[in-house]
Amino acid sequence: MPKKAPPLNAERYPARLTRPLVDELVLNALSEDLGLAGDITSQATLPPTASARALMVSRENGIIAGLDLAEAAFRLVGPGLTFRPLVGDGDAVKAGSEVAHISGNARLLMAGERVALNFLNHMSGIASHTRRFVDAVAGTGAQICDTRKTTPGLRAVEKYAVRCGGGTNHRYGLDDAILIKDNHIAVAGGVGAAVRAALNFAGPMVAIEVEVDTLEQLEEALEAGANAVLLDNMGVQTLRKAVALNRGRAKLEASGGVDLEHVGAIGATGVDYISTSKITMASVPLDIGVDIKVSV
Amino acid sequence: MPKKAPPLNAERYPARLTRPLVDELVLNALSEDLGLAGDITSQATLPPTASARALMVSRENGIIAGLDLAEAAFRLVGPGLTFRPLVGDGDAVKAGSEVAHISGNARLLMAGERVALNFLNHMSGIASHTRRFVDAVAGTGAQICDTRKTTPGLRAVEKYAVRCGGGTNHRYGLDDAILIKDNHIAVAGGVGAAVRAALNFAGPMVAIEVEVDTLEQLEEALEAGANAVLLDNMGVQTLRKAVALNRGRAKLEASGGVDLEHVGAIGATGVDYISTSKITMASVPLDIGVDIKVSV
Amino acid sequence: MPKKAPPLNAERYPARLTRPLVDELVLNALSEDLGLAGDITSQATLPPTASARALMVSRENGIIAGLDLAEAAFRLVGPGLTFRPLVGDGDAVKAGSEVAHISGNARLLMAGERVALNFLNHMSGIASHTRRFVDAVAGTGAQICDTRKTTPGLRAVEKYAVRCGGGTNHRYGLDDAILIKDNHIAVAGGVGAAVRAALNFAGPMVAIEVEVDTLEQLEEALEAGANAVLLDNMGVQTLRKAVALNRGRAKLEASGGVDLEHVGAIGATGVDYISTSKITMASVPLDIGVDIKVSV
Amino acid sequence: MPKKAPPLNAERYPARLTRPLVDELVLNALSEDLGLAGDITSQATLPPTASARALMVSRENGIIAGLDLAEAAFRLVGPGLTFRPLVGDGDAVKAGSEVAHISGNARLLMAGERVALNFLNHMSGIASHTRRFVDAVAGTGAQICDTRKTTPGLRAVEKYAVRCGGGTNHRYGLDDAILIKDNHIAVAGGVGAAVRAALNFAGPMVAIEVEVDTLEQLEEALEAGANAVLLDNMGVQTLRKAVALNRGRAKLEASGGVDLEHVGAIGATGVDYISTSKITMASVPLDIGVDIKVSV
Amino acid sequence: MPKKAPPLNAERYPARLTRPLVDELVLNALSEDLGLAGDITSQATLPPTASARALMVSRENGIIAGLDLAEAAFRLVGPGLTFRPLVGDGDAVKAGSEVAHISGNARLLMAGERVALNFLNHMSGIASHTRRFVDAVAGTGAQICDTRKTTPGLRAVEKYAVRCGGGTNHRYGLDDAILIKDNHIAVAGGVGAAVRAALNFAGPMVAIEVEVDTLEQLEEALEAGANAVLLDNMGVQTLRKAVALNRGRAKLEASGGVDLEHVGAIGATGVDYISTSKITMASVPLDIGVDIKVSV
Amino acid sequence: MPKKAPPLNAERYPARLTRPLVDELVLNALSEDLGLAGDITSQATLPPTASARALMVSRENGIIAGLDLAEAAFRLVGPGLTFRPLVGDGDAVKAGSEVAHISGNARLLMAGERVALNFLNHMSGIASHTRRFVDAVAGTGAQICDTRKTTPGLRAVEKYAVRCGGGTNHRYGLDDAILIKDNHIAVAGGVGAAVRAALNFAGPMVAIEVEVDTLEQLEEALEAGANAVLLDNMGVQTLRKAVALNRGRAKLEASGGVDLEHVGAIGATGVDYISTSKITMASVPLDIGVDIKVSV
Repeated sequence: MPKKAPPLNAERYPARLTRPLVDELVLNALSEDLGLAGDITSQATLPPTASARALMVSRENGIIAGLDLAEAAFRLVGPGLTFRPLVGDGDAVKAGSEVAHISGNARLLMAGERVALNFLNHMSGIASHTRRFVDAVAGTGAQICDTRKTTPGLRAVEKYAVRCGGGTNHRYGLDDAILIKDNHIAVAGGVGAAVRAALNFAGPMVAIEVEVDTLEQLEEALEAGANAVLLDNMGVQTLRKAVALNRGRAKLEASGGVDLEHVGAIGATGVDYISTSKITMASVPLDIGVDIKVSV
Repeated sequence: MPKKAPPLNAERYPARLTRPLVDELVLNALSEDLGLAGDITSQATLPPTASARALMVSRENGIIAGLDLAEAAFRLVGPGLTFRPLVGDGDAVKAGSEVAHISGNARLLMAGERVALNFLNHMSGIASHTRRFVDAVAGTGAQICDTRKTTPGLRAVEKYAVRCGGGTNHRYGLDDAILIKDNHIAVAGGVGAAVRAALNFAGPMVAIEVEVDTLEQLEEALEAGANAVLLDNMGVQTLRKAVALNRGRAKLEASGGVDLEHVGAIGATGVDYISTSKITMASVPLDIGVDIKVSV
Repeated sequence: MPKKAPPLNAERYPARLTRPLVDELVLNALSEDLGLAGDITSQATLPPTASARALMVSRENGIIAGLDLAEAAFRLVGPGLTFRPLVGDGDAVKAGSEVAHISGNARLLMAGERVALNFLNHMSGIASHTRRFVDAVAGTGAQICDTRKTTPGLRAVEKYAVRCGGGTNHRYGLDDAILIKDNHIAVAGGVGAAVRAALNFAGPMVAIEVEVDTLEQLEEALEAGANAVLLDNMGVQTLRKAVALNRGRAKLEASGGVDLEHVGAIGATGVDYISTSKITMASVPLDIGVDIKVSV
Repeated sequence: MPKKAPPLNAERYPARLTRPLVDELVLNALSEDLGLAGDITSQATLPPTASARALMVSRENGIIAGLDLAEAAFRLVGPGLTFRPLVGDGDAVKAGSEVAHISGNARLLMAGERVALNFLNHMSGIASHTRRFVDAVAGTGAQICDTRKTTPGLRAVEKYAVRCGGGTNHRYGLDDAILIKDNHIAVAGGVGAAVRAALNFAGPMVAIEVEVDTLEQLEEALEAGANAVLLDNMGVQTLRKAVALNRGRAKLEASGGVDLEHVGAIGATGVDYISTSKITMASVPLDIGVDIKVSV
Repeated sequence: MPKKAPPLNAERYPARLTRPLVDELVLNALSEDLGLAGDITSQATLPPTASARALMVSRENGIIAGLDLAEAAFRLVGPGLTFRPLVGDGDAVKAGSEVAHISGNARLLMAGERVALNFLNHMSGIASHTRRFVDAVAGTGAQICDTRKTTPGLRAVEKYAVRCGGGTNHRYGLDDAILIKDNHIAVAGGVGAAVRAALNFAGPMVAIEVEVDTLEQLEEALEAGANAVLLDNMGVQTLRKAVALNRGRAKLEASGGVDLEHVGAIGATGVDYISTSKITMASVPLDIGVDIKVSV
Repeated sequence: MPKKAPPLNAERYPARLTRPLVDELVLNALSEDLGLAGDITSQATLPPTASARALMVSRENGIIAGLDLAEAAFRLVGPGLTFRPLVGDGDAVKAGSEVAHISGNARLLMAGERVALNFLNHMSGIASHTRRFVDAVAGTGAQICDTRKTTPGLRAVEKYAVRCGGGTNHRYGLDDAILIKDNHIAVAGGVGAAVRAALNFAGPMVAIEVEVDTLEQLEEALEAGANAVLLDNMGVQTLRKAVALNRGRAKLEASGGVDLEHVGAIGATGVDYISTSKITMASVPLDIGVDIKVSV
């Protein structure tokens, strides 16, 4: 199985979110922040003709993700604002790095700012945390994967942020791949029976993975023809045996107990993927702020 | 100004989210996880008539929030599931505490489980982290407040989780209160002028707060008639002077540099509110899991 | 408490409705009028390439509100129409005043016309009726306020029209401020207890108003710390006593039995606000028409 | 042409609005009034378990319309409320008449009340005003018709209210019938040419009406085969001549300058329909209120 | 009754679908095809900056319909693509005819292609099949009509495609005209009674058609004043008698057992309309393909 | 690779569409057919209290699909109808077979009938046509697959109908699997390079298929590690060689020129899947009708 390419920022915007999705998410967020009355503070204190210039600056080191959503916030809040990104998604920034310029009508700019930042900070936080895990397995050939433990409504943007951080996406939902777990195995009558039932059900474009606890189950899964096997909570030595047993027949994914301290050792066992909900659930927003100058 | 009541779990479901909002958020999340094809793993491996019983258990200490969203996930995924909560929102649970029972059709139960948990864990994480800050200021009379730094699309549920943790909500959006910051002040020609412009604009039901950096600005805000003043990044000594200067005229809110180590000292200065984005942005999901038994 | 500024048309578009909201409302109205088949009369009788020029003219005196919605109707019905407003929202027009020019494809122009007018006439009717009340209290310092008695689905545009007429907005919904009425008082155990419960619940950005029937209740409300008090159905003499009793402690709002004949006397009592559903519910649309010339 | 039946309340709910439409409109209105936070006053002052009983009473004489929307408001705001109508849509009520009972959880009842009333009062106002015009033409055989001048987003409910008042609906939108006006005539090359173009375009299920200013145009329209002719702003004598000229060939509709004073004379000319925007645009809400008793 | 004009492609885009409807349908279809992750094949294999040129070519003879939806697919999938139609809706094309050029970013072009084709092929299939029926009745004066048997969600575009094929639209839904069938007749007490009830109910803009099985029922319908009569499953001789009996009083529509073999004979009886679900339900997509050249 | 199970009706409702999706599609279709005014024919001719009983009967042999959508049409059109299916999705019916009973309010039943049938007939048509292809390859081990050539907006229900007919689903959209075609190969620099790029991009849950024209390309694809290979427009002899060459390494899919006459021979070559757009695009609706008896 060929090794993965270097992190995705080798090219700018490697796998842009679709425009319809971006616009739907951002309109929803603008509606949430502006309500029926809009930004009443600016209405009360700024002339309608005031203009503003703003500079987004990262206040800490990290990886950028979410510029398309920031752009959409300033485009959809009203006509006439200009958003100019100074870096690209997937780029590493340092504390003090300039991220984007925005200019135009002051009321509009201030009405869009928080939504833009809430997306950008949240997504960059995930990209940055993913990158820490990716760096920790550098050289091992293992890829860092996400899970379905994501914030409700934001799965697409969080999985995109994982890619910006150099990670790889696990399935997007219950609908796009088969992942057989303990209950399915119990009802189907064993690992092999469950995999065969899945092969019977699935067409040519559905990947089938099965979660196993032991090397015996692994062998059973491989013989049944699983595309991938999730090795659940195995220690490093067992993982190494699993890799040997596999002989490249299926993709192997290690899961459970993954943290920054141990992920390197897990990667060194030769597994193909290491999945963890930590990159989406235990990240904190990257501190990107905005400095605004209003002129009347 | 009267002191706040004890945390909100004194009564069950103190301020339930509205049914239309809960259902809209949960349907959106179900659609995100189920896509067009639904749970193809269960389709492939479980008989359509299989039934299941599940127990949600907290795996760590914390505060519960989001049971209505979990209930909605199991109600809206399809007809016939039963969801029975064993605790209430705002309740403290310990590692091992049972949170809810679910029973009914196995395929439906497994199709709704992840959405239910993603809401419950995320919201309980916020409630739990809020409670840590609330406990740290216990006895001081200060209230812990959230901000507009929330996850796009989830502001209502995150602010509800803050209340479940014993916190108090700052404004929901740009539309429901006036918060005057540096740019508004600069354009309006000073703190007093900005507050007066806001009073001119606002009707009787709009609270007006102004952010100040110095005690001079505070005095100017109080004389102009602000309802609340945000004391930005002031040290503990200055905060104490601000409280003395205020003499109960306006609500005082301390903000900036708030963490669990220092929040108690800030509360002890006599300010009414301490706001921090940490309770929504730096929380991690509470680890609540579910054990499922499928029977054919 | 400082007195309000002159009516809001001092500046053009004082507090524009947000673009996402305008577009959502107008798309909904276009869909309602065009259905699945569109304008079949124009399809049957006008060549697809015919062009048209139109002039919107007010046929009576009044105050304009809703130009952004008219603009959106002609922008969203299809590409290529030009809408040029000749006055601004909040402007007073006379019978015969030109309001806007529209030009472009004849079919599109005629498909958007009724939606544009239905918004513009409805909103200008509210602005004009509001202005009558505003004029009737001129010089008294009292402000005219709306209520939650608005047309379902159009609250934001109706409250915007009230502002264009020189009025002030009361709360937008049940969610953005606390207004304590008789049932709440009865359950809470009195005016003071209810206000204290509300203060306990509310954060720094929530205004609290309580409805009272007597001066005793007013005193109780003021002592408890209400931000505003609604004086329900009090006669002019009692209102005057209420103002004296208040000594500027809270905002005072008179309500009940407000009509154009008596509103001036109510304003002269010194109350800060006079609220009435008449400005939204008893207004009739301003008669603005459109003259169209089609050329083939 | 057969004469119309008596007003539509002869049977209860003669032509109910569809359930999907009712629910969509009411959910939208609930969302508008409840926002993200819901009814914070009740949250602050009423125990979550408090119950309430309410009675809707009309405070003036009128015709009821909109009970299905009121029912939906109490059904959709949350589970467990009971709504029992005491009259039917289309019924005449007197000041003091009881309209409906509601009972259940106090917070839910108070959260749904304003939405229910805003629909019911608005629609009953239109039904009542329509009935005044219907009564004024009683015995003449003329029917009162609405127009497309309706409140954006509420056309279906306003046209339903017109039916409850005993009126008849003109077309719902630009899509469901052809109404040829001056610009279409000018481009098509005359009344006859325009009608023929419309007949060419239309299938068997599209009614074709043409607006005429003179009896000559009427004859031209009749010869061309129009289904209906709108007699625009004609005096009573001319209308009488038009009826004689028509000899039952087409439906005749009088329009322009219709008010309560003159509508009877217009009806006596023998025209089939009299259309006026006044029934939708110049009505005021019927004053229906609600008395609530909360018990803890 | 005047005869219909020649097929509608005499003028380009005779009755364009409305922009709001086109955009809503296309966004829905894009979302269906792109999901949350977008086109992952192009993301994996094409540089983000690659550009492409594409040519849509018809691979068989037929009638084009749906260019506006194809245009919208390439416009809404993302910014910067150029779509240039080379024919117009309603135009006849031959195998090999070029239909449209598209150029721009390669990833976007390939993301929009299938949605554009799925609409264009489906609609052109309907237009082409309609044209076969239209050609089969050429010279008879009869018009080919559609029915309400359409694909759920696509009624507007399918009825538009019928027009592009030279057909005429029957009613769009249950709401825009009255079509009385056997059950209505049975309950109302006969054809005449049912028509009179409908005339009583309907305003001036609602066409009334009644389905009859015999010439006796036809006479009853004509006397009652029906606008149109649907002659259900009558043989050619009976149809001819029905035309004679009618003497131009109502529009006559033949229905039942309509196929390409017999439709000409039916048209020759002198009926005005022949309706058949075959044009929407038994058509197959027109084979229009796209050749794409990507350049890096 | 294990062979597929017998057609899916071995168990009733093998893979039900999700409830949220069914309801969304059916509400949209009801709204399309009922518009703003609802079923005006029934309003005009049937008493509101009339009841009805209906029997759905198939008028030809075929396979049933879509009962959940029919059920939803009668459930969502209004409260109180009873829908009782007499067969299951995937069942074979003969001409004259009873499919379902419906009873309840006559107006509601007639308002929901057409939407129910439009779904049921369309989906059963696809299931029936799929079954013909499935039967034609019976005993060969080959599976019949659909494509992305589906009706816009109905992909999920059409792919479900394919399963009811015994077919297997290819990918649902551009987002859930990688299918590399000629342009991707050209840009990537060959079949092997493209597959490797895809493997680099994809996580463990993404299946990768590549389209090849020659056996050389097939070998290249297999060596690069593709999960599946689409053999485009190969003759039967070449397909047989491809199967031999493959030795079970990847799933093989034959595509191009598939019709009922030749599909059996293609299946006999030993390929795993045969995909064709004919099952979705060239099917005609199954003729299922409904007999209604209304009683007053």
